[in-house]
Amino acid sequence: MRRLAFGLMAALLATTAHAEPTATGDLGLVIERATGSVLLVDQSDRAALARIEGLGDLSHASLVYSPDQQFAYIFGRDGGLTKVDIVTRKIVNRVVQAGNAIGGAISDDGKLVAVSNYEPGGVRVFDADTLEMVADIPTGSKTIGLVDAPGRRFVFTMWDSGETWIADFAGADPQITKITDMGANPYDALITANGRTYITGLFGEDGLTALDLWSENPEPIRVLPGYGRGQQEMPVYKMPHLEGWAHTGDEFVLPAVGHHEVLWVDASTLTETGRTKTYGQPVFAMARPDGRQVWVNFAHPLNDTIQVIDTLTKQVVHEFKPGPAVLHMEFTPRGHEVWLSVRDAGKVMVYDTQTFEKLREIEAESPSGIFFTARAHRTGL
Amino acid sequence: MRRLAFGLMAALLATTAHAEPTATGDLGLVIERATGSVLLVDQSDRAALARIEGLGDLSHASLVYSPDQQFAYIFGRDGGLTKVDIVTRKIVNRVVQAGNAIGGAISDDGKLVAVSNYEPGGVRVFDADTLEMVADIPTGSKTIGLVDAPGRRFVFTMWDSGETWIADFAGADPQITKITDMGANPYDALITANGRTYITGLFGEDGLTALDLWSENPEPIRVLPGYGRGQQEMPVYKMPHLEGWAHTGDEFVLPAVGHHEVLWVDASTLTETGRTKTYGQPVFAMARPDGRQVWVNFAHPLNDTIQVIDTLTKQVVHEFKPGPAVLHMEFTPRGHEVWLSVRDAGKVMVYDTQTFEKLREIEAESPSGIFFTARAHRTGL
Repeated sequence: MRRLAFGLMAALLATTAHAEPTATGDLGLVIERATGSVLLVDQSDRAALARIEGLGDLSHASLVYSPDQQFAYIFGRDGGLTKVDIVTRKIVNRVVQAGNAIGGAISDDGKLVAVSNYEPGGVRVFDADTLEMVADIPTGSKTIGLVDAPGRRFVFTMWDSGETWIADFAGADPQITKITDMGANPYDALITANGRTYITGLFGEDGLTALDLWSENPEPIRVLPGYGRGQQEMPVYKMPHLEGWAHTGDEFVLPAVGHHEVLWVDASTLTETGRTKTYGQPVFAMARPDGRQVWVNFAHPLNDTIQVIDTLTKQVVHEFKPGPAVLHMEFTPRGHEVWLSVRDAGKVMVYDTQTFEKLREIEAESPSGIFFTARAHRTGL
Repeated sequence: MRRLAFGLMAALLATTAHAEPTATGDLGLVIERATGSVLLVDQSDRAALARIEGLGDLSHASLVYSPDQQFAYIFGRDGGLTKVDIVTRKIVNRVVQAGNAIGGAISDDGKLVAVSNYEPGGVRVFDADTLEMVADIPTGSKTIGLVDAPGRRFVFTMWDSGETWIADFAGADPQITKITDMGANPYDALITANGRTYITGLFGEDGLTALDLWSENPEPIRVLPGYGRGQQEMPVYKMPHLEGWAHTGDEFVLPAVGHHEVLWVDASTLTETGRTKTYGQPVFAMARPDGRQVWVNFAHPLNDTIQVIDTLTKQVVHEFKPGPAVLHMEFTPRGHEVWLSVRDAGKVMVYDTQTFEKLREIEAESPSGIFFTARAHRTGL
């Protein structure tokens, strides 16, 4: 009995320790692409808390969070959908739902997780609790640009057919609305933070195509006809991420394709308002949450550098070299700090966004995407 | 020993239960104004989890959250500043820092909590960890409209002198910038979600005064000269809350003073773009997070009713009577549901914002303000 008592005492202590951390508002996960693991991090402590392994191929991986910020749904390139509990720091479920996947989304009520597939194409939708498949939506195409929209909807686009579909899960059966003629080979898409405007980037032609999701019958709207590789056919080292569009208030800032510049676009009319020359081909142009600064990283071989642009003057106000292969940036939710993944240095670096001082380096295995839990409360991330 | 073992087993179970909930992203607190208590609620379960008592006078109380969403700082009318741990569901610290207080704010890094005082006036700033006072800023006036701004700053305004002060805590000592001539008897203020524009409402004259905090030397900008009680001197049952300004994208919606209408204002130019007639004198006009709807509640004696306005058509699309004394509304972070405090029914009511269906009633003691933890990640709330 004494041994039992001590055993229980030990279990009691273990349980108490196990329950830490007990608040999840300032946590995050960093994708470790080479090792199929994610690193749990704490923004306030600027520290790594734990590594969770066994997530498969995490090259080009992304994730979304449950509304309570307890669970992350991680979308691997290999079609794996892994549910991680960041409180217990364990994988709680994993399904390999396709052969080759490219991102996902979670419905506004947190009940449905959707995954966009290259192979076999289409979108599959899962119960967020159990990961049981609740809908299989074949599209006859590689599917890209999957986002959530208000009203339990998902929006996604077909690389092969140039269609965008809106899948509405408000009722018992999903209702699909199909919009044709979005353009040649859409390669990525974004939705604005309010969930109103969906914009696809095109690989097969210049320009972008927008949809007003508040319209009863959304029609393709061609915008920025000069946006693309253009006549010069410059080598494009990496197509820029559209999710990286920075919304500074009245304007968007977007990475040019194949050129060393970012474009400024009026947020209401989607017409160009200016350009800023940059150090290299931009990959992400991300606004600090208050919109006063835009941080830009660049494609290989110039991917060791960050430039910071002031949105009032549209001038570069700071430039520095964090290290080799800066792949991603994530701001703290109110913007006072920014975390950078420096893949080939094996580090995540934390900077003060007012002073540009480096505050901390955190060891990580080939870090790429950084995802803070505040994303749980935003649309379209 | 057997008894000890069972005792430990019971303790083990209690500890496990005690650690719930272990994720704080979908929690919230409801102010129970008559009993000096707060009700901890869970958005996903649409349920009350616990009542925390002993917070003093909570008439006109508000609160802010720490970045990790573990702690709430509750500002009571009696000058009490109470720190509540929503994981352990206990008061962890409480100071009575003034005789009569009116709201507070938390710095963007989560390190400083500031309180705005009527009596003795001024602003006091506390260490968020210990609640030790780190700065006392006498202003010689009742102080209102205290908000946080990016860069570890607080902005607040003097009822008596019509000055707005910006207190910058980025360095070792706070730097104070004083802006005079904001107008006669400012009674409340707001800061836009990006932290750029600070706007004061005036009791002593019509119109509003704005400051561009991105300017190196912010100057008072008079806007909406017709905004106020105007010539008719209609009885004003309650001055509307400015925090309730709804930002729908290109426009703000604000409650008229003493009139049965809301005003639409261009967000860039701050000029009026339209008016919508309403059921009563609006108190809060709050945008669903996607900006597509604005929900309006009204002053006594018409405070049993809610109207929902569509922001595309500016028309009332839904009206209903939740019950007597609807005091406050809080949307889930992605807007699929809204919680209403119906004080004299002793209930918080949860509605679907797409179907307007009532989903749940939760018992509460004279509920007023509802504060979800997602506020931790927003500026100026």
